[in-house]
Amino acid sequence: MELWEKLIAGDEVACARAISMVENEKDGYLEFLRKIHPHTGRAYTIGFTGPPGAGKSTLVDKVVKNLREKDLKVGVIAVDPTSPFTRGAILGDRIRMADLNTDPGVFIRSMGTRGSLGGISKATLAAIKVLDAYGCDVILVETVGVGQSEIDVVKTVDTVVMVMVPGLGDDIQAIKAGVMEIGDVFVVNKADNDRAKKTKLEIEMMLDFNKDWAFRPPVSLAIAAENTGIDELVDNIHDHREYLENSDELEKRRLNRETMQIHQLVEDIMNKQLDQKMDGRKEDVKKSLDGDLDPYSIGFDIAQELLKSNQFIK
Amino acid sequence: MELWEKLIAGDEVACARAISMVENEKDGYLEFLRKIHPHTGRAYTIGFTGPPGAGKSTLVDKVVKNLREKDLKVGVIAVDPTSPFTRGAILGDRIRMADLNTDPGVFIRSMGTRGSLGGISKATLAAIKVLDAYGCDVILVETVGVGQSEIDVVKTVDTVVMVMVPGLGDDIQAIKAGVMEIGDVFVVNKADNDRAKKTKLEIEMMLDFNKDWAFRPPVSLAIAAENTGIDELVDNIHDHREYLENSDELEKRRLNRETMQIHQLVEDIMNKQLDQKMDGRKEDVKKSLDGDLDPYSIGFDIAQELLKSNQFIK
Repeated sequence: MELWEKLIAGDEVACARAISMVENEKDGYLEFLRKIHPHTGRAYTIGFTGPPGAGKSTLVDKVVKNLREKDLKVGVIAVDPTSPFTRGAILGDRIRMADLNTDPGVFIRSMGTRGSLGGISKATLAAIKVLDAYGCDVILVETVGVGQSEIDVVKTVDTVVMVMVPGLGDDIQAIKAGVMEIGDVFVVNKADNDRAKKTKLEIEMMLDFNKDWAFRPPVSLAIAAENTGIDELVDNIHDHREYLENSDELEKRRLNRETMQIHQLVEDIMNKQLDQKMDGRKEDVKKSLDGDLDPYSIGFDIAQELLKSNQFIK
Repeated sequence: MELWEKLIAGDEVACARAISMVENEKDGYLEFLRKIHPHTGRAYTIGFTGPPGAGKSTLVDKVVKNLREKDLKVGVIAVDPTSPFTRGAILGDRIRMADLNTDPGVFIRSMGTRGSLGGISKATLAAIKVLDAYGCDVILVETVGVGQSEIDVVKTVDTVVMVMVPGLGDDIQAIKAGVMEIGDVFVVNKADNDRAKKTKLEIEMMLDFNKDWAFRPPVSLAIAAENTGIDELVDNIHDHREYLENSDELEKRRLNRETMQIHQLVEDIMNKQLDQKMDGRKEDVKKSLDGDLDPYSIGFDIAQELLKSNQFIK
């Protein structure tokens, strides 16, 4: 059997190999994705995001256990930044999930960011495809951090869970991060803190500032470390899923994800050719730095060499 | 006088208008950038980054005052995420700088992120050009957050100051954020906290883990709110500047920045054409979601329509 056939058949080792293959863009990975594509589209994807220290890993851990009790096959993709200091993804968070690793109904994968933005979301989208073809009913994507790249990653899922912590509202850290608006479901974790209820209220107020919700994001409290509030969170995610499925929103989101995937592939192809061209222009770049040329003229010139159409030359 | 001439002459109103123009990519903005290009290249750029809550704004505030005492003309670009809730950049941090606003030797500008990654770094690079042409001796770029997009922004400056806070080292938040490696100068702010010295030590240890530094980043303590440790920080920045100027590193960094600018411009042109093509492929995307087509075939097909060369078709 070929790798893709093994994957479809639910072979765990094949799944691990397949994710490595697509993540590292090894020879034939596109052909591989093409082959598994007809076997995808069944998995439901849930993203978990929020500020560092919000306890996302522990929360994801408990949600996985909850879903396992419902006998669902679960995939977890944890997007961790790669540090040149460590030459690899930081695995600290993952170690906590050790007990889940022995469960054949759970597949956990940490992904490095590969140093580039396109890298993260591209690899994550491809890994979602693989886990989908592998037969996962639900795929959880956990992103560390609150930056734009993380937002881009999490935008590709069906339901976005924003994990908040008490006290954040005090200095509107949440808004600063610019991620409030992408949450479909909110949860204030570490709710044994006094300020948890106040933070919940602040989030609700901020949400109610926008009166036009087709689905007003629910906000719940949780203490992931004590397994408290997980049922309510899972119920809230389920409500959002029902809303998506009963409107045209689910299809819209998935069309978006598909579009993003195509976009990334074409951008990738274009960027490779652009990089080649740039390599041949090192002297021009130097001239630009010296003021003898300018970056805008060089840019237009390169675009003209790369693209069939010249309609941009104005 | 045209806008660009006014800018070169040091007209403050022209500077504000010029930044708006390039930030919003108004008609003629590329021609404008082309005209000011020969008048740029003199400003020294310093980026300030670090986790939320590290007190970056206050620190930048004090550094500006320190530079003003040396009679340097200073520009500040604060990159804040834009929230759909507020329809604009969050200005809270900037309000603290109110007293600087009345100083004609300081030009402060908050920038929204415009919802996209390319947006931030593109607008920031363009704003740096404008402030450079305006005659700023030093330009400080402050980024809120710790994500990949912020790293990309800050990578374009000459010296990167990593602003840390006591206690962060405890849960290796710093490494997680994946930003340690881009710091040229480190400062532990809010050093009135007991754990400040420990955090400094932890950072030093992490830095010394890499033995091959051409310039080992100095680590200092500061209490920005009390104006403590600012001289040492500014001295450290100066040391890094001297290192860059006495090696080929400064030119390397600036060539990188110039390259990035050209790259972004070409990507922009290419993406506009890609977006047009994607709009015409909505039916195909739907078919892809239904499994009748696949995103990879569609992607290659579009690339073939856009690019002159077909060498990518394998």
